[in-house]
Amino acid sequence: MNVAHLLLGRRLANAESGARKIGAFEGVPAMGLDAISSIAYGPEAALAILMPLGAAALLPAAWLLMPIIGLLLLLYASYWQTIRAYPGNGGAYAVARANLGAHASLLAATALMIDYILNVAVGISAGVAALVSALPMLHPYILPLCLGILFLLTIINLRGTEFSGRVLALPTYLYLVCFFVIIALGAWRAIHAGAHPHAVVAPTQLKSTAQAVSIWLLLRAFAAGCTAMTGVEAVSNSMSAFRDPQVRYGHRTLSFIVIVLALLLAGVAWLIPAYRIGAMDQTQSGYRSVLSQLAGAVLGQGAFYFVAMAALLCVLTLSANTSFVAFPRLCRNVAEDGYLPEGFAQAGRRLTYSLGMLFLAGCAALLLLVFRGITDRLIPLFAIGAFLGFTLSQLAMTVHWRRCLRQVRGSRALLRKLRLGVNAIGAIVTAVALAIIVVAKFIEGAWIVVIAIPATIFLLQRLHRYYLEVERRTAGFEAVDTRDTQSPVVLVAIERWDKPAMKALEFGLRISDCVIALHLSRLHGPESEEHQEKLRRHWREYVEDPTRASELPTPQLRIGEARYRTLHEPILRTVHEIESEQPRRRVAVLIPQLVKQHWWQQPLHTHRARTLRRHLLKCADPRLTVVSVPWYLEPKPRH
Amino acid sequence: MNVAHLLLGRRLANAESGARKIGAFEGVPAMGLDAISSIAYGPEAALAILMPLGAAALLPAAWLLMPIIGLLLLLYASYWQTIRAYPGNGGAYAVARANLGAHASLLAATALMIDYILNVAVGISAGVAALVSALPMLHPYILPLCLGILFLLTIINLRGTEFSGRVLALPTYLYLVCFFVIIALGAWRAIHAGAHPHAVVAPTQLKSTAQAVSIWLLLRAFAAGCTAMTGVEAVSNSMSAFRDPQVRYGHRTLSFIVIVLALLLAGVAWLIPAYRIGAMDQTQSGYRSVLSQLAGAVLGQGAFYFVAMAALLCVLTLSANTSFVAFPRLCRNVAEDGYLPEGFAQAGRRLTYSLGMLFLAGCAALLLLVFRGITDRLIPLFAIGAFLGFTLSQLAMTVHWRRCLRQVRGSRALLRKLRLGVNAIGAIVTAVALAIIVVAKFIEGAWIVVIAIPATIFLLQRLHRYYLEVERRTAGFEAVDTRDTQSPVVLVAIERWDKPAMKALEFGLRISDCVIALHLSRLHGPESEEHQEKLRRHWREYVEDPTRASELPTPQLRIGEARYRTLHEPILRTVHEIESEQPRRRVAVLIPQLVKQHWWQQPLHTHRARTLRRHLLKCADPRLTVVSVPWYLEPKPRH
Repeated sequence: MNVAHLLLGRRLANAESGARKIGAFEGVPAMGLDAISSIAYGPEAALAILMPLGAAALLPAAWLLMPIIGLLLLLYASYWQTIRAYPGNGGAYAVARANLGAHASLLAATALMIDYILNVAVGISAGVAALVSALPMLHPYILPLCLGILFLLTIINLRGTEFSGRVLALPTYLYLVCFFVIIALGAWRAIHAGAHPHAVVAPTQLKSTAQAVSIWLLLRAFAAGCTAMTGVEAVSNSMSAFRDPQVRYGHRTLSFIVIVLALLLAGVAWLIPAYRIGAMDQTQSGYRSVLSQLAGAVLGQGAFYFVAMAALLCVLTLSANTSFVAFPRLCRNVAEDGYLPEGFAQAGRRLTYSLGMLFLAGCAALLLLVFRGITDRLIPLFAIGAFLGFTLSQLAMTVHWRRCLRQVRGSRALLRKLRLGVNAIGAIVTAVALAIIVVAKFIEGAWIVVIAIPATIFLLQRLHRYYLEVERRTAGFEAVDTRDTQSPVVLVAIERWDKPAMKALEFGLRISDCVIALHLSRLHGPESEEHQEKLRRHWREYVEDPTRASELPTPQLRIGEARYRTLHEPILRTVHEIESEQPRRRVAVLIPQLVKQHWWQQPLHTHRARTLRRHLLKCADPRLTVVSVPWYLEPKPRH
Repeated sequence: MNVAHLLLGRRLANAESGARKIGAFEGVPAMGLDAISSIAYGPEAALAILMPLGAAALLPAAWLLMPIIGLLLLLYASYWQTIRAYPGNGGAYAVARANLGAHASLLAATALMIDYILNVAVGISAGVAALVSALPMLHPYILPLCLGILFLLTIINLRGTEFSGRVLALPTYLYLVCFFVIIALGAWRAIHAGAHPHAVVAPTQLKSTAQAVSIWLLLRAFAAGCTAMTGVEAVSNSMSAFRDPQVRYGHRTLSFIVIVLALLLAGVAWLIPAYRIGAMDQTQSGYRSVLSQLAGAVLGQGAFYFVAMAALLCVLTLSANTSFVAFPRLCRNVAEDGYLPEGFAQAGRRLTYSLGMLFLAGCAALLLLVFRGITDRLIPLFAIGAFLGFTLSQLAMTVHWRRCLRQVRGSRALLRKLRLGVNAIGAIVTAVALAIIVVAKFIEGAWIVVIAIPATIFLLQRLHRYYLEVERRTAGFEAVDTRDTQSPVVLVAIERWDKPAMKALEFGLRISDCVIALHLSRLHGPESEEHQEKLRRHWREYVEDPTRASELPTPQLRIGEARYRTLHEPILRTVHEIESEQPRRRVAVLIPQLVKQHWWQQPLHTHRARTLRRHLLKCADPRLTVVSVPWYLEPKPRH
């Protein structure tokens, strides 16, 4: 318990949940790292696809970032509306459930869950890969580093979202300041130096032998650049983390994240052609990322450059935090609707949904272990989940506005038509982007998601059916049976006459007027007879004589044989004998149980009581109740 | 359960134990493989130490085997007597316990346990090493092969000693026939051809540049050769496996094993100088073992040679079986005296001591995994355990005969004096051998055993003290308390009014006239009030009205708050309230529990009932009994 206390802090009371809610200042680091850090790889992914074009790629790439920014703003408008219309958490899942039905909502939930799990593995391993390429002596420790960061993020988030927001605030805001300075300085120089400013450290030389630009190439580059948008939906999934007024803080956090991301993307789009920065081949030695080239070109490789790069590295590595905030809350919503085990909906020690976090960490750890910390091959997979979520959420909002339109007229109708239009366009554009991503990356691994999503949905539906069945069977609007309240026949399983057996027998005498003790011998021959004789003597002396003297009903001692060394078979035989002798009475089997009060006692005893209890329960006889009567080596009496 | 049935066969009844006992035919393969297979490495180990002497080593090596054979016969005489004097299993442990006291017996037990565990790891990996040197394409699979054979041996032995004896009979007797033929043929040729018979396949050329023979070298070679003797004590530890008359079958098995081993050793001692066979360096390519050279020299490398080598390989690999027979029985004796967990003394499904076998297999698997299947470095360790066992057992027998001597006079006294002499000489010689082994191999790893043995003894003694304490506290020769048999106050923990809650309440009404239902809310605000209102309505309708109508005591509904989401704290508070209100009554907390009847249901529920039960038991209040009232989704009524 002390370990849990040290790592996670004290258990929080329900009443404290208000004080643990966050505002926009903590919200941006807690939920926004995935989105904000994506300028590190979004533009680079687009440029990498255009690499065969050489220097001719720079302008198309820059122009390509414009529709991406446009799509981002469309998503922004859409999620702004979603947050207001469905402030109660859940994002795409809740919206789809309300407007498109259970199937579509499960599709959205599954897509997002897969997206979040992959985001943790990919985020951490991408960060560690960047760290290792900066400090090559760390190369043998890729996997331990990944798992260590995963452990750290898990602990930080188990302590509470508010804690994680405050811990991550420093690197997040440092990173933002650095890159705004770089972009502002670069832009100022670009304006003053005309078309091509002087680069302090020259970026890579671009080949001028250019291929022709094809539509398919541009579409693929667009789809690749779209990865910059993942994580934008996280705020809508994590609304319950905000303090009142929730919607206002949600809107502030979302606005800050999207505007910052859009400005950074626009800045990069402007400076790439200005400084003639292209993507380099990652597999070649001397590789430098686009952002590193840009920072070098603007600043040179001085102290500020290293601070900016360190902050970028930090933010990249910790971008998995978004999943830790959004995933457990998404799972809670799904679990509350009965599609996931109910444990996902239970608040843990620190009022977070611990099971969801641990499940997320477990899945990510498994992915990291299987891929030994190098998860490049997972990258194509995880944009699919995000875009499926985007599309469904916008589609659902479209339906939502259409439904609203039927109810109002006049100027408010016009506003809603506008909103409908925004969401409809958003749905179409994200659907197209999704289609491009799936087609372009199908062979690279997108097919895995195409299999995993239906399989997960199938599982969730089976779970739901199971819970419905449990509910149907347990729910009972019946009155208690008052006709028959006769005490049960009590059967006490004893091995010898000792204190645990005595306590069980005394409990039996308190709850019933018909107590039978059953001794099962596993011994043979003379040894067994001697043991039985001793027990009979004890029984007469310590049980029969005192009860007779007090004119109580005298418990009966039966002796049986455990021919196969398992105790439950002969006990069940006796139970069925009693049940047929006295068909109206219930039977309670009392098992004296020595309670192990220390962990190290577990392997030192045979757990006979536990095994017996399990076997008796397994027979599922509704007339039988199994009672373990606890006996303590070290009792702690209260009075 | 079907898997267990397939692998291990049906559960045996206690009454069948007689039919599962073995005679000498199964006893030799089951217990003797360790001893019999040791001619494969005992003489080789001695020759390897004498290797620097070159050809001059052959005669000393041959003569060195003579005192080893002498010592073997001494041990034979000693164990023959031990079996007769202590037929009830236990070997060195039982003899030392009876004659030297608890400390010496624990030393003997620990030494033997360590010896047996190491024997499994070393036996299997030596066999696999020989297999791999014969079939080099198996080299990448050393560890899986080792673990596979370990698994196989575990299963065979879990099925019963008699089964393992019958399975191993074929390779054992085939091996014996082959090597007796080789030695007989070799001896016949040696006699007819004079001093140096013609070798069919020439053994390695021995260098003639000879060092001087030193006493220390001879002593080390003697100590190394002594490894041929390990496993001789196994019969005395496994006596309970034999059918009646136990002593006779034990004597027969021991005699067969020792005489066969002595004859083989003598044959090898004769033929080594005759065919001029020396040890080769194992690390060099083209290495051939001494037995392989001998077989080649006598037979040539025809079909018979390969059959003999295959049988040798089989026997070497399966020599670990000796440990599987002796270790669990040794542990059972130690456990029955209260120095090991009682599970070691319980007969399992097939009437074998399964826990001991599984523990042995687990330890050996751990050693194989840690050393990745190459356990050469463990070899020096395991002779120490065996020789410590030999020494203690003979010492104990010496004390035994001295005690007997005090009681008799005349010719029987002379016989006992003779026996005393045999054991005393045996004790001295094995002690000297032990000292040589420890000194010679201290740095190579013997120090590990010198640390491990006292540590294990310490642990066993702590266990014993714990069990004594448990016995002291549980043993109670008191009469049941008949003054106070008032029914306990029943507290039913309910979440809502459903069938499990109803069943628990009905059980409460059957066992007590004072039933209180406690509902703990973990919800907040209006939602919580609505839930409580509903529960109160149900309570009035389904509980209060019917009980009042039937003039039964009306159960009371209390509603509390689980401020920290853990249920046990508010329940314990209520329990202590009741305990102080009614200081003479016991309290029983009834927890409705949905019994999971399928394994896949485990992760789908929250185990709230189990957690609550565990927490309530942890408070160790002797007046409190915790009763889980089972409720079944799929009841199987008997009538």
